[in-house]
Amino acid sequence: MNAPLGRLAMNQATIPRWSTAQAIEGCARAGYGAIGLWRERLAPDGPGRLGARAHTAGVAISSLCRGGWFCAPDDASRRRRAADNRRAVDEAAEIGAAMLVLVCGPAATKDLAAGRREVADALAELAAYARPAGVPLAVEPMHPMYCGDRSVVVTLPQALALARSIPGGVGVVLDSYHLWWDPDLEAATAAATGAVLGVQLADWLAPPPHPLEGRGMLGDGTIELRRFLRLADATGYDGPVEVEIFNPAVWDADPEETLAVVARRFAEHVA
Amino acid sequence: MNAPLGRLAMNQATIPRWSTAQAIEGCARAGYGAIGLWRERLAPDGPGRLGARAHTAGVAISSLCRGGWFCAPDDASRRRRAADNRRAVDEAAEIGAAMLVLVCGPAATKDLAAGRREVADALAELAAYARPAGVPLAVEPMHPMYCGDRSVVVTLPQALALARSIPGGVGVVLDSYHLWWDPDLEAATAAATGAVLGVQLADWLAPPPHPLEGRGMLGDGTIELRRFLRLADATGYDGPVEVEIFNPAVWDADPEETLAVVARRFAEHVA
Repeated sequence: MNAPLGRLAMNQATIPRWSTAQAIEGCARAGYGAIGLWRERLAPDGPGRLGARAHTAGVAISSLCRGGWFCAPDDASRRRRAADNRRAVDEAAEIGAAMLVLVCGPAATKDLAAGRREVADALAELAAYARPAGVPLAVEPMHPMYCGDRSVVVTLPQALALARSIPGGVGVVLDSYHLWWDPDLEAATAAATGAVLGVQLADWLAPPPHPLEGRGMLGDGTIELRRFLRLADATGYDGPVEVEIFNPAVWDADPEETLAVVARRFAEHVA
Repeated sequence: MNAPLGRLAMNQATIPRWSTAQAIEGCARAGYGAIGLWRERLAPDGPGRLGARAHTAGVAISSLCRGGWFCAPDDASRRRRAADNRRAVDEAAEIGAAMLVLVCGPAATKDLAAGRREVADALAELAAYARPAGVPLAVEPMHPMYCGDRSVVVTLPQALALARSIPGGVGVVLDSYHLWWDPDLEAATAAATGAVLGVQLADWLAPPPHPLEGRGMLGDGTIELRRFLRLADATGYDGPVEVEIFNPAVWDADPEETLAVVARRFAEHVA
């Protein structure tokens, strides 16, 4: 990338006050080389026009968030989810996203092992659709506190085993917020060599203010972010590094200002 | 145990409206064979009188909560914490608790690895004091969401490695709320054979209503509690099973009623 800010990328979820078109232009103005987008924010322009707009602005689409939510209580809803995931692949292809991020869960019942098998089956099926479309699928190991309501994939070794159980086109995305606590993080990332499709950053606030909307601005929390990126890079990954912060205080701020703050904090705590 | 409710035990934190003396009597009346107590609730009677009272009532003290909080920013506070942990051992000995539960963290800085080394050193030192006193020390692997503000020990394999690095008198306590998400739970518990000092249960609510006070009544959440206890038992553990629920709705309830509800739920979802 030739962006002034180098590998630094913004995830749209950090600056929700802007429309997607505004976010793309804003990132370009601020010197960001890439942006991660969310499916529910693609209307009204649609993936085709947004992709063209980003291309013109010189901003890469580092990710499309998100597919997954594979498990279902019955066959009808399972088919609906599979169809929606194929649409997500189509959108990722059309917009030119570097990966489609997948939330792998939650389980439909208390049987966590069964939920994990269901995820593996649905992922293999989706990968067969995504491969010819040229869309890399990124399994996101999520923090274990989301095991009940979001993702049954909660560790990097587990995500990696799942991704590697499927032939081609499936990798993992490493998010500091989800993975920082792992006592075996160094070994886990070393084992992920060649399989990392993307990196996301947020800091961990202590104590956590909220299970879902408590992510911290870079530098405000407990994570050694510089070490985290070094471990991610040691896998051979050298692509964009998205900053994705779910936090009402960040959401309420002026997006222009947030882009500036993130760039400053990134230089100070990560790069 | 000859308690009418078998292995079912109550942790005092579930019924905070009662004084410790009331809680002991209440558990005896309800047929509970054991109770887990908290240090900050030992006054005004003190551990000696409370231990005698429990003995007379036929209620065992399954745990004393809690020591730990080992890491400190400087030597002076480190010495204060070590002294307080020795007092915790003395209290556990005096009251006749089956184990002293340890919260192993949080780290004093962002250097998580250094925090983990500091915990190991302080634990080894405390174990040398606890061993002649006959007080088993229980390392509690806590949910990874507490890694920033409570415990740098967040997985069972990590807790086990830590406990086994110290000669004698140190084991682990298995809490369903902290461990249920682990994709390798079966292997991890199998590896814990002989090292389990206690078991605690709470359910996981989805989505989690609060990072600290969102534990669920048995049966209200996502955990296969029966399977969890079976895995714990497969380690050779056959002692009390404490129910420990941090939840304002449970705290506000009549403790008498909570004892009855827990017994019913335990029979339905666990035993």
